[in-house]
Amino acid sequence: MEFEAFSPSELAAYLKRIPVVSALLGDGELEVVEVGDGNLNYVYFVSNAAAPQRSVVVKQAPPFLRLVGDAWPLRRERMEREVAALRRFGALCPQHVPQVYHADSGLYLMVIQRLASHRVLRGGLIDGIVYPRLAEHMASYLARTLFFGSDLYLAPDAKKAAVAADINSELCKITEDLVFTFPFGEHPSNAYSAALPAAAIARLREHEPLRVAAAQMKWAFMNHAETLVHGDLHTGSIMVNETDTYVIDPEFAFYGPIGFDVGALLANLLLAYYAQDWHERRRGRDPQVYQGWLLDQAVLVWNGFAEKFAGLWRGHERDSGRAFVGGAADAPAAEAFRQRFMQRLFADTLGFAGCKMIRRIVGMAKVADITRIADDAVRAQIEVRCLRLAEALLVQRDAFASIGEVVELTARLRAQPGFDA
Amino acid sequence: MEFEAFSPSELAAYLKRIPVVSALLGDGELEVVEVGDGNLNYVYFVSNAAAPQRSVVVKQAPPFLRLVGDAWPLRRERMEREVAALRRFGALCPQHVPQVYHADSGLYLMVIQRLASHRVLRGGLIDGIVYPRLAEHMASYLARTLFFGSDLYLAPDAKKAAVAADINSELCKITEDLVFTFPFGEHPSNAYSAALPAAAIARLREHEPLRVAAAQMKWAFMNHAETLVHGDLHTGSIMVNETDTYVIDPEFAFYGPIGFDVGALLANLLLAYYAQDWHERRRGRDPQVYQGWLLDQAVLVWNGFAEKFAGLWRGHERDSGRAFVGGAADAPAAEAFRQRFMQRLFADTLGFAGCKMIRRIVGMAKVADITRIADDAVRAQIEVRCLRLAEALLVQRDAFASIGEVVELTARLRAQPGFDA
Repeated sequence: MEFEAFSPSELAAYLKRIPVVSALLGDGELEVVEVGDGNLNYVYFVSNAAAPQRSVVVKQAPPFLRLVGDAWPLRRERMEREVAALRRFGALCPQHVPQVYHADSGLYLMVIQRLASHRVLRGGLIDGIVYPRLAEHMASYLARTLFFGSDLYLAPDAKKAAVAADINSELCKITEDLVFTFPFGEHPSNAYSAALPAAAIARLREHEPLRVAAAQMKWAFMNHAETLVHGDLHTGSIMVNETDTYVIDPEFAFYGPIGFDVGALLANLLLAYYAQDWHERRRGRDPQVYQGWLLDQAVLVWNGFAEKFAGLWRGHERDSGRAFVGGAADAPAAEAFRQRFMQRLFADTLGFAGCKMIRRIVGMAKVADITRIADDAVRAQIEVRCLRLAEALLVQRDAFASIGEVVELTARLRAQPGFDA
Repeated sequence: MEFEAFSPSELAAYLKRIPVVSALLGDGELEVVEVGDGNLNYVYFVSNAAAPQRSVVVKQAPPFLRLVGDAWPLRRERMEREVAALRRFGALCPQHVPQVYHADSGLYLMVIQRLASHRVLRGGLIDGIVYPRLAEHMASYLARTLFFGSDLYLAPDAKKAAVAADINSELCKITEDLVFTFPFGEHPSNAYSAALPAAAIARLREHEPLRVAAAQMKWAFMNHAETLVHGDLHTGSIMVNETDTYVIDPEFAFYGPIGFDVGALLANLLLAYYAQDWHERRRGRDPQVYQGWLLDQAVLVWNGFAEKFAGLWRGHERDSGRAFVGGAADAPAAEAFRQRFMQRLFADTLGFAGCKMIRRIVGMAKVADITRIADDAVRAQIEVRCLRLAEALLVQRDAFASIGEVVELTARLRAQPGFDA
């Protein structure tokens, strides 16, 4: 089937025919506004023109990568995958996942909850806005979604059935290529800032410890089917306001490493941190205040996640009476294993964060935190800091004893002068 | 469907009606002999009474664990899994995998190549027989089956489709329980030698580093979908003679860690090593000669496997022009990653070997190498050595620099007196 994006009037007419959506939107004229970022999908806000608070989001996932077009075809399954993941994560975390009202696989289309008083977190961070409940909410979302999909909670056969059902080859391939492979070689999809020193690019290709570490994370991404992850949890996949936090767009969801989502979020907070040396200064403010808040959020997200995840695990073993390590739930070995597990998960998280930062600097898909820095020299300097931190996260991921050490290094690298390879 | 094992005459009549099998066996009366070990399946040799070289093996996998009966039901899929795995491994290694002539899922039955001049390796090792081509053949079998199922060779979507197709929850659960969980706690399925010191049993339950390491291997077994493994590659799953080596019984096959099969084989060679202090002495021979051969085989299997596996990988990258690490196949990073990968694989292998050894000493399913030791005190002493080595393999698995160091420790523990916890 040839895909054709709806015209606004076609979309309005279609939605009128869906009882559950029509009931939400009410009678009268519908207003349709396209709001997608253009990378992958068509996204519309559809509202009742006379009662704009009656509103839904329509997302249409065409059978190709929108950014590239027909030359990068994608399958219908990605929309079905996203709907299934929204429902699964929504069941675990209803307060942080938009509701799905309607899904139509034939049209590559879903209708979901409108988050009308929320904005995309990335934009809020660029604007220097403080979200007081963000870290607590994300820690809770991450702990619940990542714990309940894993062998630490599910019966082994249910977990294995979920692994098979949630295979997502097509979108995983995008990550395998764009995050873990292309940035480390010459590839036409890579894109470098004009002023980025050649030595910084060469280092990604030639520094063996970095290359080895990135390949280890690639292997983990492709092989460690630990839990159902969101798969693309950057700050553009989070909608926020003062009181709420929602995670959207889980079309990359698959059974992957527990640390992948946590790493993606930390990576984006750390990119935002370095980028603030431009954005806050441009607003005439001392960047260090907001930067301090950003690093605090990285600390609160990891520590909150780790505490909640371990708490869910401990509680489940207590309730069931059985420990993953074997024997009774209160065996000292159960707690000893939990501690080692969380250490290993932390190292994984940092490794994935490093890869995610690198791809945003030299890979195809950029982040506005960086691209909106108008001064080439400043942008390149900030990008170099991002790359240096990313390398340290990857290569030394087993050596960091705490997230506190990570943010200390993050701040230290901000204070250092330029790049030397 | 109620399962009923064939009577010999029913089985003969059935086989006569299958053209391909009937052609192999020829006209005339068929002789049917039951030869299964009774743990899981019914196994028959069926031969032409007038021409005994015309012969096949019939394996019937009932919908329950034969050792336990109806109380441990199993699904029909395990027979289908075994047939699929035999065909897959056979395509990769025809000289080391028996041919499948016929499969009948409705009857839980397969007809496969008779290995008439071969015997089960475990029995041969107990009898102190040298198999000059064993290590080379097993290194080749392991390298080929484990490499060609992995992301190092397969296209990512083909690999992921194979992961989903080869989910084997039921038999994996047996391993998860009997290898990785029950031996480390009190469980009714555990079985201890009369003279095994209480301290040796207590150590399995109380020594935290051992418990943590075993749980890490359990996690890897359940989560690391690296390649299609045989899943039960002990010396009872290998048929040998002077010139040939065949791997049989892959009903536990699933996408799991590359090190699992290699570890299983090493574990069984090391158990055989300690057991020879009884068997060779009983035959009036100095055990150290055959023990030396056994340790040599452990070295040759690992080193041969590692060299062939890395060689297949290197060759594939050279042929395709692309490295897993990204960039060109000849990038120094490709070789650096390969070396680290093989180190990690070695550590995994040792960890799995340790778990496999422990389960054979204290778990439900024993090995004849050990159970045939008639003297309780000698058996217990040998079992203690097995447990001590297993613990070292698990806890220090990242510290062994080579298989040479492993066999040195193996020999050293043989020379030490009794167990102290």
